[in-house]
Amino acid sequence: MEHYLQQVKSSSRILLSISSQERNRILREMAEALRLNATDILNANTSDMKRADEENLPLALKERLMLDKKRIEAMAIAVEEIAALKDPVGRIIDGWVSEAGLKIEKVSVPIGVIGIIYESRPNVTTDAAALCFKSSNGCVLKGGKEAESSNTVIMQVLQEVLARNSLPKELIALLPDSTREGVAKFIQMDQYIDLIIPRGGETLIQFVSKNATMPVIKHDKGQCHLYVDKDANILEAITIAINAKVQRPSACNSIETLLIDKEIAKEVLPIFKNRFEENQTILKGCRLTREIVYVAEATEIDFNTEYSDNILSICIVDGVHGAIHHITKFGSGHSESIITENITTAEIFMNEIDASSVYVNASTRFTDGGMFGFGAEVGISTSKLHARGPMGIEGLTTYKYKVYGRGQIRQ
Amino acid sequence: MEHYLQQVKSSSRILLSISSQERNRILREMAEALRLNATDILNANTSDMKRADEENLPLALKERLMLDKKRIEAMAIAVEEIAALKDPVGRIIDGWVSEAGLKIEKVSVPIGVIGIIYESRPNVTTDAAALCFKSSNGCVLKGGKEAESSNTVIMQVLQEVLARNSLPKELIALLPDSTREGVAKFIQMDQYIDLIIPRGGETLIQFVSKNATMPVIKHDKGQCHLYVDKDANILEAITIAINAKVQRPSACNSIETLLIDKEIAKEVLPIFKNRFEENQTILKGCRLTREIVYVAEATEIDFNTEYSDNILSICIVDGVHGAIHHITKFGSGHSESIITENITTAEIFMNEIDASSVYVNASTRFTDGGMFGFGAEVGISTSKLHARGPMGIEGLTTYKYKVYGRGQIRQ
Repeated sequence: MEHYLQQVKSSSRILLSISSQERNRILREMAEALRLNATDILNANTSDMKRADEENLPLALKERLMLDKKRIEAMAIAVEEIAALKDPVGRIIDGWVSEAGLKIEKVSVPIGVIGIIYESRPNVTTDAAALCFKSSNGCVLKGGKEAESSNTVIMQVLQEVLARNSLPKELIALLPDSTREGVAKFIQMDQYIDLIIPRGGETLIQFVSKNATMPVIKHDKGQCHLYVDKDANILEAITIAINAKVQRPSACNSIETLLIDKEIAKEVLPIFKNRFEENQTILKGCRLTREIVYVAEATEIDFNTEYSDNILSICIVDGVHGAIHHITKFGSGHSESIITENITTAEIFMNEIDASSVYVNASTRFTDGGMFGFGAEVGISTSKLHARGPMGIEGLTTYKYKVYGRGQIRQ
Repeated sequence: MEHYLQQVKSSSRILLSISSQERNRILREMAEALRLNATDILNANTSDMKRADEENLPLALKERLMLDKKRIEAMAIAVEEIAALKDPVGRIIDGWVSEAGLKIEKVSVPIGVIGIIYESRPNVTTDAAALCFKSSNGCVLKGGKEAESSNTVIMQVLQEVLARNSLPKELIALLPDSTREGVAKFIQMDQYIDLIIPRGGETLIQFVSKNATMPVIKHDKGQCHLYVDKDANILEAITIAINAKVQRPSACNSIETLLIDKEIAKEVLPIFKNRFEENQTILKGCRLTREIVYVAEATEIDFNTEYSDNILSICIVDGVHGAIHHITKFGSGHSESIITENITTAEIFMNEIDASSVYVNASTRFTDGGMFGFGAEVGISTSKLHARGPMGIEGLTTYKYKVYGRGQIRQ
């Protein structure tokens, strides 16, 4: 593995000398190659699906794993859309002349080689490869083992395009050893891998962030809250709460807990209960909630659980400070929202909550690269450094200073 | 230790509700307190110095450890200068209205709690504490054990100012267990420490970056190069080379290796040799160098060594691509400079070299927060993510998205 990763690293440097135009042309060729080789990809996917059936894997996993003509077309279009993005490398982020008369430019540059570990979704393979190639980074991909046949064929298709353009195949690499031991070794190879992005299960993410020796940008869980303040527009609050829980309960930006100001709890809880039950939401409540409406009990474990399902905990809190206290204790720093018409209360919440995205009077479901207008999304970072929250392709770049002198020496 | 760090973390949240004005007033009080307690600090420093004498510590270390009235005044002034900086928190970095009509603000916020591990320099204690306090971060400081008495008294002085202003003392904390085991435990406490900044020895930095479970911003070695191209102005090249090596050989932004284009080596090497020998520089050279001038042999080990002394390796390379090849193999990604009048050659070098700061026709000694015009310097990051190169106080912030809606839900 070490030798291979070394090759990936050294070949990744070639990306610095390919023009943006050239890179985009190759990306469009890749999209075309996905279409032309659809039959091979579908055959490989069929054998993945067969194995998934034999192993009785959950329906949700199989749904994500499955490919058809339409999905391959969507993958190809996504690659073309990435090709159409503005080049994230070479942006002059800042620039000035120093006291010594040096012209200093802060310029975006690729990170180097990026390792991405992800779920069994073959479309992530093409997305990740295209995003890294577009941003002039080498990449080493490790998809879920359930998608192994599909990923292998997809990678062959992409690598053939590289080879046809006289580029080393390793620019888009698949982790050669995808066992748990292989991954453990991989995340210690900081001399070749500059950044690891783990997506998917909590256990995997914990394992990677505890053991990786290179920087990690996590795409971890979303323990998101919606707080309904006493000064809320209640009708708006209900619409937003339903949207934030029900529209797509499996999404990380869906809420898990509804916090209600104690001053309005008696009045509004029965209405919330009705509307959620109309939407088949299973409700759980704190002690105070259960004195007002009949729901199951929510324990500390519930307040710590990302249900990823149409289940909602309710907790009555003492105003905005009570809400902040609860969120600070249980939140995962993903997305938090307050519903209030009071501008002071809103600002207290938005300033004191430590999360990637804080909302007033909107659904947490907007925490998303597309919704933010980023064009393509690498994911939603729950790390605090380098990239936080919805992560556009700029998140795959770092910067360097280019300093232009005329013979200056330091006094 | 865990309980204490937990306290640090929870008390750090209070910084979010102190105004910028209040924070600056407290910083100025701290500067004043340093002056008023100078005698106590000097007494503690005397006992540190006594121990250093008994243990026969190197002169350079003692020089950094030693305090006097003048140095304490300089520490106080540095704190006042940090107070005078623009608040790094609350900057609106970017802002736009999304398709759904959400107003999105990307705003700088503190990172949380920052751990800083550094050498036996008591002035770093006040600098680091003031920089973290200014940027609304809690901090846990771990200075070199040689400075323990000095640091303890300095911390007491700073913490008394906090207490006098009804703030928790833990906002500026000293690592309670400063043994190696203590540090090993500390760098795994990612639930309380959001970022670790190790400065100082290579072994320590390697240990921290391999074992820390939270993000690390390294202040690691500088294996810097100056490449003299065939199209260089040779007089300028000599002046810059002397400055980059001789002005302060112990600095991380000093060069360790001089690369010379083979096309001009014969002609210019004797001149370089003379000028360096006038400056007492010890020269070593590659095989080709030694065919032209008489110097000691430079091996691969030399090309990998940060001398931090007035010693210079010389290597003859095949044009700009040879220089890039050498730097890619041996450089540490700190600062690299090319001397050339040819704009195309300069751009090839500046684009293809992967380092925090790349120069044309200037000394690498300018890689420094002050020289870049940053006002206060946290250090010079050799990490690639979050902060790279000279790191101003903005490097101690991250960002969050504040999203203002009017009832928007996701379709």
